[in-house]
Amino acid sequence: MSDDDIFGGHEGGKLSVSATRPITQARDLSIAYTPGVAKVSRAIEQQPELAKRYTWADRLVAVVSDGTAVLGLGDIGASASLPVMEGKSVLFKTFAGLDSIPLVLDTSDVDEIVETLVRLRPSFGAVNLEDVSAPRCFELEDKLKEALDCPVMHDDQHGTAIVVLAALRGANLVAGRNIADQRVVISGAGAAGVACAKILQAAGVGDVTMLDSRGIIHAGRDNLNAIKAELAETTNTAGLRGGIDEAMAGADVFIGLSSATIDENLLSTMAPEPIVFALSNPDPEVHPEVAAKYASVVATGRSDFPNQINNVLAFPGVFRGALDAGARAITENMKLAAAEAIVSVAADELSADRIVPSPLDPRVADEVATAVAKAAEDDDVVG
Amino acid sequence: MSDDDIFGGHEGGKLSVSATRPITQARDLSIAYTPGVAKVSRAIEQQPELAKRYTWADRLVAVVSDGTAVLGLGDIGASASLPVMEGKSVLFKTFAGLDSIPLVLDTSDVDEIVETLVRLRPSFGAVNLEDVSAPRCFELEDKLKEALDCPVMHDDQHGTAIVVLAALRGANLVAGRNIADQRVVISGAGAAGVACAKILQAAGVGDVTMLDSRGIIHAGRDNLNAIKAELAETTNTAGLRGGIDEAMAGADVFIGLSSATIDENLLSTMAPEPIVFALSNPDPEVHPEVAAKYASVVATGRSDFPNQINNVLAFPGVFRGALDAGARAITENMKLAAAEAIVSVAADELSADRIVPSPLDPRVADEVATAVAKAAEDDDVVG
Repeated sequence: MSDDDIFGGHEGGKLSVSATRPITQARDLSIAYTPGVAKVSRAIEQQPELAKRYTWADRLVAVVSDGTAVLGLGDIGASASLPVMEGKSVLFKTFAGLDSIPLVLDTSDVDEIVETLVRLRPSFGAVNLEDVSAPRCFELEDKLKEALDCPVMHDDQHGTAIVVLAALRGANLVAGRNIADQRVVISGAGAAGVACAKILQAAGVGDVTMLDSRGIIHAGRDNLNAIKAELAETTNTAGLRGGIDEAMAGADVFIGLSSATIDENLLSTMAPEPIVFALSNPDPEVHPEVAAKYASVVATGRSDFPNQINNVLAFPGVFRGALDAGARAITENMKLAAAEAIVSVAADELSADRIVPSPLDPRVADEVATAVAKAAEDDDVVG
Repeated sequence: MSDDDIFGGHEGGKLSVSATRPITQARDLSIAYTPGVAKVSRAIEQQPELAKRYTWADRLVAVVSDGTAVLGLGDIGASASLPVMEGKSVLFKTFAGLDSIPLVLDTSDVDEIVETLVRLRPSFGAVNLEDVSAPRCFELEDKLKEALDCPVMHDDQHGTAIVVLAALRGANLVAGRNIADQRVVISGAGAAGVACAKILQAAGVGDVTMLDSRGIIHAGRDNLNAIKAELAETTNTAGLRGGIDEAMAGADVFIGLSSATIDENLLSTMAPEPIVFALSNPDPEVHPEVAAKYASVVATGRSDFPNQINNVLAFPGVFRGALDAGARAITENMKLAAAEAIVSVAADELSADRIVPSPLDPRVADEVATAVAKAAEDDDVVG
């Protein structure tokens, strides 16, 4: 894949807006525009819920970023983040048939971003937050959920968390393990790490140990921000203190979500035949071939190694399920259902080198959407 | 055209977003999304002008409304205005091949709308303002032009003005008249009326007389708002006072841009064989068959009478020309050039029943775009 291939694939942008019905004669114009459209606008004015039926907004996903944490590139700004958001829109359409528009913001003030989306609320039906830096992303997502009566999900948090849970379930199926018995170490307490910890706890993992750049997160540490203080209360039930050495000793699962590399020796201190997800991109925390010397299952974020853990398995189906159901929000149960669906699609086909379906598997989004829509009904967040 | 036809034509909305390049294999995914997209984002971070080349934003039109003056329906709100904005996007694509996204705002505060679009600036390349009430629309357009370094045009003002000027030039060609010799009466001093007065003056009309609901606008009137006070200075060189009767006596051209009806008798007081544009929709100020008893040329806004004056002749080509040229703004000369281009496309085919090309004429947008781009170069607002 040469630079020419890559840049050529982005020339002019990657999206196009088209009419669902062609305009070829005067009559088409009179229906799509004046005078016909006046009847539709008038009908919506009189019965606002008709906007769901006669506009695209109800099923339109706004892909929103301020460009503060773009891929592994950091705070590169809104304009430079746009190719990623366009790519996201391409994936929404390709995998879930959903229309979406990238909205990149030249402000990183949380309240300004919320205010902007509140003002634009009639324009879209859901918000996929993307590439917003931590810990601002937690506050931003919370405030948006509060302010908007539609599905809102920060994909770097929850898309990643859903796929990591699906992968752990897949690995456990293959390796004959039980999630409740596992001690899981998560390296990285950013957007993805925090959401992974929460979904794993909701899924029944007994003990999650979180590490940030200063070591194990525990209640005795100083200067924990709000989200880490909360994690200190709910994770690390063994009360570990120290750094990566102390965390890894005897652990069943390692999930790398930071760029901190893991020395091979550390893997030898884990419980027998551990599960290792080295998800840092482009450089995994430990090379998968090295990890395979110790681990029963190894996964990365890369497509050129087995077991690629890729958000595209989750977000298209999650949003489609939420929109299909007419959900006002995306709940924890909807995320858990998405993870189950990802594993169950390929349950009969799983192996140590294939703990999740391929990102290109066309069955996934459909199954995820169905499961998410059902969970939305069960959680009574519909309509 | 039944209600079923109309509502059926809007079911699910009228727009779709698609990928310009299909994702069918893992390699496509690696180019459009990670890891490939990271190189493109990094390149834009280092060289911001590359966003023009590698994102869609530079050529994307934001179709923006607050729903305060939607067609003839008034202040029906953002959500109810969305079918019109989607229709506008359909027309941008159909006639000019331009991608656009409707952004409807749940605020009618001018400064909040400006602030919102400033924050979203990296997301689009031009702003088509639509269906914003007067006189707010004048302030909003001025502030947006000041705040944004890209083409901004309120179509209800300038799209209408361009097509009206084109129609008057077409009518004059047919009737052998000269714009400099004409006294033009404009009924209606809202968005369209004000912009028409200005473009006609710029095109060389010697005397424009404006009427609002209180009669002829002149410098001796009380309580004129800012825009009308300005018009009082520049229009009505004959110093007329009074109402429609005084305005119409001896006038060469009538342009109706309000819903005020015109009595047949008034037409008989105009100069011989006047030109009558009764543009109110759906009910023209005077029925075109009645007007034809007196006038040499009659036009309306309706497709079921001859000489439909339709903004779609102007805005697609105007925006495409501005974007093709990389213009930072849309100048008076660019608008004048657009009007000339509309007439010249069909100059050899004009007749009293065909003073402008058909709204479906595929040549128009190309010619307008070329003329507008050239005027942008001449005015040095490029790059």
